[in-house]
Amino acid sequence: MQTQILERMESDVRTYSRSFPVVFTKAKNARLTDEEGREYIDFLAGAGTLNYGHNNPKIKQALLDYLAEDNIIHGLDFFTAAKRRYLQALDEIILKPRGLDYKVQFPGPTGTNAVEAAIRLARNAKQRHNIVTFTNGFHGVTMGALATTGNRKFREATGGVPTVGGSFMPYDGYLGDGTDTLDYFEKLLSDKSGGLDVPAGVIVETVQGEGGINACGLDWLKRLEQICRAHDILLIVDDIQAGCGRTGKFFSFEHADVVPDIVTNSKSLSGLGLPFSQVLMRPELDVWKPGQYNGTFRGFALAFTTAAAAIENYWTDDSFAKEVQRKGEVVSERFAKIAAWISEQGIEASERGRGLMRGIDVGSGEIADKITHQAFENGLVIETSGQDGEVVKCLCPLTISDEDLQKGLDILEQSAKQALS
Amino acid sequence: MQTQILERMESDVRTYSRSFPVVFTKAKNARLTDEEGREYIDFLAGAGTLNYGHNNPKIKQALLDYLAEDNIIHGLDFFTAAKRRYLQALDEIILKPRGLDYKVQFPGPTGTNAVEAAIRLARNAKQRHNIVTFTNGFHGVTMGALATTGNRKFREATGGVPTVGGSFMPYDGYLGDGTDTLDYFEKLLSDKSGGLDVPAGVIVETVQGEGGINACGLDWLKRLEQICRAHDILLIVDDIQAGCGRTGKFFSFEHADVVPDIVTNSKSLSGLGLPFSQVLMRPELDVWKPGQYNGTFRGFALAFTTAAAAIENYWTDDSFAKEVQRKGEVVSERFAKIAAWISEQGIEASERGRGLMRGIDVGSGEIADKITHQAFENGLVIETSGQDGEVVKCLCPLTISDEDLQKGLDILEQSAKQALS
Amino acid sequence: MQTQILERMESDVRTYSRSFPVVFTKAKNARLTDEEGREYIDFLAGAGTLNYGHNNPKIKQALLDYLAEDNIIHGLDFFTAAKRRYLQALDEIILKPRGLDYKVQFPGPTGTNAVEAAIRLARNAKQRHNIVTFTNGFHGVTMGALATTGNRKFREATGGVPTVGGSFMPYDGYLGDGTDTLDYFEKLLSDKSGGLDVPAGVIVETVQGEGGINACGLDWLKRLEQICRAHDILLIVDDIQAGCGRTGKFFSFEHADVVPDIVTNSKSLSGLGLPFSQVLMRPELDVWKPGQYNGTFRGFALAFTTAAAAIENYWTDDSFAKEVQRKGEVVSERFAKIAAWISEQGIEASERGRGLMRGIDVGSGEIADKITHQAFENGLVIETSGQDGEVVKCLCPLTISDEDLQKGLDILEQSAKQALS
Amino acid sequence: MQTQILERMESDVRTYSRSFPVVFTKAKNARLTDEEGREYIDFLAGAGTLNYGHNNPKIKQALLDYLAEDNIIHGLDFFTAAKRRYLQALDEIILKPRGLDYKVQFPGPTGTNAVEAAIRLARNAKQRHNIVTFTNGFHGVTMGALATTGNRKFREATGGVPTVGGSFMPYDGYLGDGTDTLDYFEKLLSDKSGGLDVPAGVIVETVQGEGGINACGLDWLKRLEQICRAHDILLIVDDIQAGCGRTGKFFSFEHADVVPDIVTNSKSLSGLGLPFSQVLMRPELDVWKPGQYNGTFRGFALAFTTAAAAIENYWTDDSFAKEVQRKGEVVSERFAKIAAWISEQGIEASERGRGLMRGIDVGSGEIADKITHQAFENGLVIETSGQDGEVVKCLCPLTISDEDLQKGLDILEQSAKQALS
Repeated sequence: MQTQILERMESDVRTYSRSFPVVFTKAKNARLTDEEGREYIDFLAGAGTLNYGHNNPKIKQALLDYLAEDNIIHGLDFFTAAKRRYLQALDEIILKPRGLDYKVQFPGPTGTNAVEAAIRLARNAKQRHNIVTFTNGFHGVTMGALATTGNRKFREATGGVPTVGGSFMPYDGYLGDGTDTLDYFEKLLSDKSGGLDVPAGVIVETVQGEGGINACGLDWLKRLEQICRAHDILLIVDDIQAGCGRTGKFFSFEHADVVPDIVTNSKSLSGLGLPFSQVLMRPELDVWKPGQYNGTFRGFALAFTTAAAAIENYWTDDSFAKEVQRKGEVVSERFAKIAAWISEQGIEASERGRGLMRGIDVGSGEIADKITHQAFENGLVIETSGQDGEVVKCLCPLTISDEDLQKGLDILEQSAKQALS
Repeated sequence: MQTQILERMESDVRTYSRSFPVVFTKAKNARLTDEEGREYIDFLAGAGTLNYGHNNPKIKQALLDYLAEDNIIHGLDFFTAAKRRYLQALDEIILKPRGLDYKVQFPGPTGTNAVEAAIRLARNAKQRHNIVTFTNGFHGVTMGALATTGNRKFREATGGVPTVGGSFMPYDGYLGDGTDTLDYFEKLLSDKSGGLDVPAGVIVETVQGEGGINACGLDWLKRLEQICRAHDILLIVDDIQAGCGRTGKFFSFEHADVVPDIVTNSKSLSGLGLPFSQVLMRPELDVWKPGQYNGTFRGFALAFTTAAAAIENYWTDDSFAKEVQRKGEVVSERFAKIAAWISEQGIEASERGRGLMRGIDVGSGEIADKITHQAFENGLVIETSGQDGEVVKCLCPLTISDEDLQKGLDILEQSAKQALS
Repeated sequence: MQTQILERMESDVRTYSRSFPVVFTKAKNARLTDEEGREYIDFLAGAGTLNYGHNNPKIKQALLDYLAEDNIIHGLDFFTAAKRRYLQALDEIILKPRGLDYKVQFPGPTGTNAVEAAIRLARNAKQRHNIVTFTNGFHGVTMGALATTGNRKFREATGGVPTVGGSFMPYDGYLGDGTDTLDYFEKLLSDKSGGLDVPAGVIVETVQGEGGINACGLDWLKRLEQICRAHDILLIVDDIQAGCGRTGKFFSFEHADVVPDIVTNSKSLSGLGLPFSQVLMRPELDVWKPGQYNGTFRGFALAFTTAAAAIENYWTDDSFAKEVQRKGEVVSERFAKIAAWISEQGIEASERGRGLMRGIDVGSGEIADKITHQAFENGLVIETSGQDGEVVKCLCPLTISDEDLQKGLDILEQSAKQALS
Repeated sequence: MQTQILERMESDVRTYSRSFPVVFTKAKNARLTDEEGREYIDFLAGAGTLNYGHNNPKIKQALLDYLAEDNIIHGLDFFTAAKRRYLQALDEIILKPRGLDYKVQFPGPTGTNAVEAAIRLARNAKQRHNIVTFTNGFHGVTMGALATTGNRKFREATGGVPTVGGSFMPYDGYLGDGTDTLDYFEKLLSDKSGGLDVPAGVIVETVQGEGGINACGLDWLKRLEQICRAHDILLIVDDIQAGCGRTGKFFSFEHADVVPDIVTNSKSLSGLGLPFSQVLMRPELDVWKPGQYNGTFRGFALAFTTAAAAIENYWTDDSFAKEVQRKGEVVSERFAKIAAWISEQGIEASERGRGLMRGIDVGSGEIADKITHQAFENGLVIETSGQDGEVVKCLCPLTISDEDLQKGLDILEQSAKQALS
């Protein structure tokens, strides 16, 4: 494999190519193939971007059909037939059946752009600058979003410019089992000298992806919603990684029966890995004036097309969601078993997550890396997350075959045993 | 045309669909077609994103070839064959012949992401927080980039959070003909109490697109480079809109024979309107540590593929550049003629720009709007820019046929006469 | 009493003159006299500025002696004999006997100036921007200090400019009896994605004055010191209100046997109510370059003189400290009794504090105001503090006579009974 | 002279004691005496704090009278007879005769506190964050004020925290003789994408003290007022150094017949070198709510007393102002002569200033230092200012005797000749 030009020309900022130092060429559903023809089971799936698998045939066909004629590809924020098709699918298949009434903003097609737009909208709507976010939260790295992202790696790489406008609260479970961390938040809200500026909004992931596959309790999320209502604070669910079915429902917050004021989606939203994002907002929050937030690629018609196809093909009934839940149980059980074996080796380990967003916390990044490096040797692409990279995580395509899922899990178990024996 | 769902569901932030209230469906080179079959000449070209035209057949073929097999579409920052092909094309066809030695960072695929990465890199490299930018500059709207963007529309829509880390200097010509605005910058740099924190870098557009098609003098740019060198400040050329051939050379700064320390590209970089961006940096500035800046869509293989095809097809010799220069002259002459006619009506007007980035300054947004609205009625999609929208601008595809170019210019001239008579 | 010109000309920002709407003229030790000759016991003592009483004769004599000749009054940061006398007293009588080795900075003569200098010194020394502060902390209202002050009243009056560089942690007791709040701080320090930027320093009051007379546990303070040492963070004790003997020792942190890296003093430091402040720093932290922090009144020789006299007269042995401790017990017992009576009325109340910095928490500002307003009617000047003003506080002169102390306590008890019966 | 303890214990931040390494003890009007009995003419006068001279007998007598009884010294923001006396003097003797109608805020007693209060008031009143300030402006070093101060020495000593909320414009003369710098300001105000956030206020010194004794043109100041009115921006005159008669009128802006919306005073306001400051504001701007801005020493009764005495003794008619103007002419003529001599030596030099705020610009700090060091040897305390310390400045007491003034000027001339021959 020729990697010289890649190593020479690409900035040292590159990272995944260090964990998986091969040149990938082909990819199909849950399988990746490198230039030398070696196949890998993919439990990373574009960091949660390929919920429908690589080169999903139904979605790809929609793309090819669109490309077969000279349909408009790049459309700024024109009205286009592609955008209309997407909005119809979103409204008819996703929003209405769930009783949700949202308007949609297409900011730039990346997650961080969606977060920047969401928090700015919240600030404009409430005329307050503060956004509450949670420990181990990840919401992007552009400067506005970074104020709500906890990772020091990014926060310390701003060349000395502190972020402005974010306040961190402890996420569910952060203070141990006996403590409801929202008590602290609620106390601060009611305290006139606690140092917490009354926030415009709270941004939260219902399952923290980069933060270590921490799934908040559904009661906790419900209570968070109630606190927000009581204090006139907007609830923003960042569903960029946990949304689009990853947790077993289209929106991750459906499990808790909460209705956010603002939702961000990206990653798997296009269904095929194309850059795409959206901000959903209660209609009364749409205080934007024309053109107050922009971006060149906010009308990427190929993504509208594949995103519509994804919704049309997978979300007209609940069969896909149930499949995800079923597979989630499979992973959960197997992860629990692996975690138990690791614990037996004297390394405390535990399983966690929701739906097909699952992890094994092995306590340290060093141990987790041993396992994932071994897994890659054995043909499985799998990554870690968490503050120290201590959680081995499964973000496999939701469409993975039972056979590949089993094979991936087998490799992981075997790799853990090889690595830790 | 059914626009109800578009109007109902899309946020009020939408803007181009107000100027051009039709549903676009087809697009080919410099022609757009709406749902009712009406054709328009396109002098907007995705706000400079479609330098190679809509559905450019050569570039599109590369995309279709890539999609014909199950090649990887979304690759995080893996090594992929698609990325390698792009880097090879960039290195062999663009950089080496120009004597440029740059490393490449792929941040998120939008312009604002590239700017955020570029200014953060400059800050990290120099360990200073300040970035100097220019009046009427536009560099994106995420909070980091916004610190360098002059438009109040965006700056006042942050919900009260002031931007941090940008200082504005007058752009070339801002203080009138007799004044070299760099005198002021140089004086402040040498003044220990002038209030200008020593900057890490200067970010500049060689032709300000959103700012009103202001082309800085080549001597001014050269002097700016010298000032940067003398004061150990990094020169960042934001070539997002002016790059990729728009001014008649691949990089807009080639005209002035300057070599920036950092370059940002996006918009037309993918050649087909796909989201894509890059940051070029002198190798010694690559102080990034692995993973210090990230983004989900930084390995969009379809864009690598089309971007490579664009370079391979258009930049192996200087014929395309010369074509652009020739067409630029055509537009310039015609714009001068239109401007002269407008001036005769008592409205002071003048032509400006470089290459195929051209504008007519008619003094007020109101007048400019009259012209562009009439033009749309007459079958030409054309927009305005400048602080008050006072500049009617031509960003037509570089690949536009002479026939369509003439037709577009005819419509514009006719529309001006209809609007202002 | 003529108050018209005061009411007409002074800004509405005035506040104490609303609680005590009389014109004060004379003042002696713990007694205030208004223009009509009415006397009041003073349990406010300049918000803790008059530890040695109004017009303390020994200290005042030093002032008069100094003024008797044409000694320099205002000396910028010249070397002056007055400054030397102060430094000698500080070194010989305060620092050396306590085994403390500090250098001294005289910033502007106000507390907020000392805090600004202290946190800036910490940032410069550690090259990190973040300063950790605590819920209900008060450290001044200039923009730098305000980042560490919790009160919304001030934080929301900045005209929309968010403060930069402060992170709030829960103070001792904030999360209830069972929780050591430093667990949270320590967890965040060790967490690479908890959102807490590694701080340059921690600023803490050992007894929070404005925050409600919250005295942190001495073990808690000791542990805070250990955490700071373990993580290379500077410990800054803001002893502006709790220092100069208020808690029964010269420095409030002596009780816990901790040695801060940086200390701020002001309020009672001059001994006579003259504006004066200082920053003490471990010698190795003195990274200031000449003139990097300035202020016109940093060499106020009258304050040097009275501050020296205060030290010379009160701190050469421990008799004064013991007197304070004894009186503190008197107040504590009596406050406990009053609190018990209030609790019997169905209003939960409790006593708190250290030394002669004492409060009764009556649960709400409304109730506390009733008591203090009645007390003023009855001849006692006493104020409230706490986030809602729910704590009736005693900051009487440390030099108060036993008779006046009893009288003041009697008035308070009687007033509470009148107000709440 | 014993300086060991001073050198050992005081932070390296000390600065004037490096230029004048003696221990000062006595001071009377324009004379300083060191510990060894050597006398110096004082052309520094507390950096403009001692307009009425050291130990002014009339003002000092008022202080001694006040201290003779147990009058209240420290009064928070109580109503006191001392405050009332001051307000009456201010209103009757200063404001009314000048047709000025202002309310008064007493923030903390330092200049930087007054500036913090003033700009915060402007922001609150206009609900905008930006404050425009000028090149070479100095308005204090606490973080809020520092945003409006140009000196890099202070701006770079914040430990990496950038200031927020200040924008610098070129001061009068900054761009050379032919250019009215307000053209640039006015253009930016009218430019929707010039990068200048619409300011709440403009803060300006009519003569820049620390910035190099730059006196703005009176027409320029008048035009600045008109621009502020036209754009609904508050005009804040920082008269901390130039006020209290320094320029030949009580307020420096009287020369230009402008009426600022907000004025800050400090330095000589107390008349005797006591810490004292005030903010004057048009009554309709007093949007402060009770207690929104505070500070322990805002009711320093000794300063009220001396400040009243200063006004009562010097400002009931215009004789003192005329004396200042007359002496200013003396200094101006002599400085011009000295500057001419220096220019003859091949070092371009020029005189500048207004009233008794005068300077000789000798082009470099190195040359200026040579002169002032020599002057100190010869018995004159005189300092430099300007971005490089290139201006030898005279801020002698306004009450200086003609004899001492001549003597000081003689020493300066002689020293210049010694230093530069």
